[in-house]
Amino acid sequence: MSTVEHSVVTAVQEVAVKAREASYDLAVATRTVKDAALLAMADALLASTDSILAGNAEDVARAEANGTSPNIIDRLRLDPERLEGMAQGLRDVAGLPDPVGEVVRGSTLANGLELRQVRVPFGVIGMIYEARPNVTVDAAGICLKSGNAVLLRGSSNARSSNAAIVEALRGAVVASGLPADAVQMVPGETHDSVKALMRARGLVDLLIPRGGAGLINSVVTESIVPVIETGVGNCHVYVDAAADLEKALAIVMNSKTQRNSVCNAAESLLVHEDVASEFLPRVVEALQGAGVTIHGDEHFADFDGVLPVTEEDYAEEFLAARIAAKVVVDVEEAIAHVRRYSSGHTDAIVTEDMAASRRFVAAVDSAAVAVNASTRFTDGGEFGFGAEIGISTQKLHARGPMGLPEMTSTKYVVVGDGHVR
Amino acid sequence: MSTVEHSVVTAVQEVAVKAREASYDLAVATRTVKDAALLAMADALLASTDSILAGNAEDVARAEANGTSPNIIDRLRLDPERLEGMAQGLRDVAGLPDPVGEVVRGSTLANGLELRQVRVPFGVIGMIYEARPNVTVDAAGICLKSGNAVLLRGSSNARSSNAAIVEALRGAVVASGLPADAVQMVPGETHDSVKALMRARGLVDLLIPRGGAGLINSVVTESIVPVIETGVGNCHVYVDAAADLEKALAIVMNSKTQRNSVCNAAESLLVHEDVASEFLPRVVEALQGAGVTIHGDEHFADFDGVLPVTEEDYAEEFLAARIAAKVVVDVEEAIAHVRRYSSGHTDAIVTEDMAASRRFVAAVDSAAVAVNASTRFTDGGEFGFGAEIGISTQKLHARGPMGLPEMTSTKYVVVGDGHVR
Repeated sequence: MSTVEHSVVTAVQEVAVKAREASYDLAVATRTVKDAALLAMADALLASTDSILAGNAEDVARAEANGTSPNIIDRLRLDPERLEGMAQGLRDVAGLPDPVGEVVRGSTLANGLELRQVRVPFGVIGMIYEARPNVTVDAAGICLKSGNAVLLRGSSNARSSNAAIVEALRGAVVASGLPADAVQMVPGETHDSVKALMRARGLVDLLIPRGGAGLINSVVTESIVPVIETGVGNCHVYVDAAADLEKALAIVMNSKTQRNSVCNAAESLLVHEDVASEFLPRVVEALQGAGVTIHGDEHFADFDGVLPVTEEDYAEEFLAARIAAKVVVDVEEAIAHVRRYSSGHTDAIVTEDMAASRRFVAAVDSAAVAVNASTRFTDGGEFGFGAEIGISTQKLHARGPMGLPEMTSTKYVVVGDGHVR
Repeated sequence: MSTVEHSVVTAVQEVAVKAREASYDLAVATRTVKDAALLAMADALLASTDSILAGNAEDVARAEANGTSPNIIDRLRLDPERLEGMAQGLRDVAGLPDPVGEVVRGSTLANGLELRQVRVPFGVIGMIYEARPNVTVDAAGICLKSGNAVLLRGSSNARSSNAAIVEALRGAVVASGLPADAVQMVPGETHDSVKALMRARGLVDLLIPRGGAGLINSVVTESIVPVIETGVGNCHVYVDAAADLEKALAIVMNSKTQRNSVCNAAESLLVHEDVASEFLPRVVEALQGAGVTIHGDEHFADFDGVLPVTEEDYAEEFLAARIAAKVVVDVEEAIAHVRRYSSGHTDAIVTEDMAASRRFVAAVDSAAVAVNASTRFTDGGEFGFGAEIGISTQKLHARGPMGLPEMTSTKYVVVGDGHVR
């Protein structure tokens, strides 16, 4: 604790205590009240367009002055259309079922005791995230609907945008009869405020980091508050001996090139040796035609423009127009390669062979395993969850896209009539 | 890492790597094979009675020589009857449904993709526990049935008992066609081996500490491997204004005195002021008659033998024939008291008033909330789970008694026919 500024710790604890108080009211708020608040938040966001865009212009100007990279500035920049998208996201969340109160299982025990396991909010959730201001709105909406108070620790890059957004949202929350402290920004602009959040065990129930591998890794290793790890995706497509090569080509191209900066994009291609001579020329031409640089093993060496692949390439989440590529002797070598290098996000097999499919699905331990489908489908929207706070790549509590039910815990309610043991 | 002996780190990593390899076979083992292994483990335990009791006698002699307290020695001591109980526990686990492969939810998406969320093992689970050798057997059985390799780090007090038990179990596992390294002891007798386990992120998927508050707290705050916190129980019974006082007396007595050394025993009594004059004389007499020391507030001061209650008493898990007692003005004061002092294990209300019951159940955020029932029912056996690895008092992944399903994660299986976005 010695390395963290004392005043920052105090300030973070103060907002966490206020969040805890707010969480008591939120936990018992009805769906009717919460949905009205979400719609009011959407309206307030649009009504505050001028102040939010003014704050955002400050952030963008500061980022440009600091020489921030253009793609980060693009993610930071807001316009009326993006604000409308954020407001629509809140309305969509209002339309989703309330997870709180859902009876997960229940029974009457032999002695007549009634037992119900019921979904309840976590209480206070801390979000630690990077530049995009839309995460501020998404997180506030999803946490409110699931009955959780949220502590938002966005990037200092986006501080003016986030401050204007949170001010608008809090006004709408209060006007709806819920406590303003259901939605709070974490004070402090240095990393000390993140550290203070990671030490706030007992005040904060759950931390969700969203951002690059460096941010996520530091939260996962340093936090004593429970963490759900999100997002790093080193995804594989394995083209089996029994693959339909038309489907394989479409799936490889979609997985790699439909959008290459996202966690569910493919980063590695594995091809069974039996189909290599037929498939390699086609896939190399298609990938290179789409501007993708191939880092290939010796089987790819004869193709112009292919770079030799390294161990580091196999392990890297490129998030760019690059792919590692390797020929394997069988499905077992493909599985062994995936076990070694996959980040456990999404790995796909393309095959018409039931046995190969069953083996790959059983042996590959990732959040999602796809058969004859693009890795790009691992997404809360595609899965029909309606809202997504992130994609968990760890195994505790939630794995894969996290929607509203994943933002809850459960408790057992035991009802008797004077029962004793 | 500088404070941990390098050779211990290496040794722990070696067993973790072997556990990971074993976990690949375990994850795809059928229920038939796993159940046969569990029955063979039960037989092997009984066939090894002599060597296990000899090892146990060494442990008990060492503990006695070290001046270990009699109740710890009692928990450490094995006899043929306790061994038979442990063997029966393994047979009971064989009789339970296999959680692995259960489809938790599934649907066909609008584009025809088939989506299934399926239970899968975590992979490698580390158990860190104190003196009782029966935990060695329970953990090995529950982990094997749920498809997880287990690393057992028992108390050095029980090292000879545990070594003999694990030798017997591993022999049975191999004879059943599963890898021996499904069940391993963690090498090293100092706290360094615990530290090495807590740093083995990526090799170990989950740590479950079982023992006193000190052990659990140190694991929870130091581990970078995900942890499920178990067991600390500062449980409350609130006797409402509308309580049936016969039921209330029975529930208080059962919660406090049926077995006072366990986590689901009551440690605090709250009584509504409207029934205090009638209930206090009766409950004081009954508790004192059962040998319970009462630490009471000013309303209890007139009764002989009642000690004045302190803040520390309200916060303490006595695990003994002691109870803190307080009169409250209404259900809201009871809820506020529970929020402040409860460890989030089990809290009970005794009332015939629907509104008070609904309010207490909604507002008290504990793993179990009981209405007109003893706190002692929060238990995997009582809940009908058949086996229990511990009682989670935290909110992530599992809360309350943890049976076989809680020892699994899930993955999404996405099946298409060449689907792309």
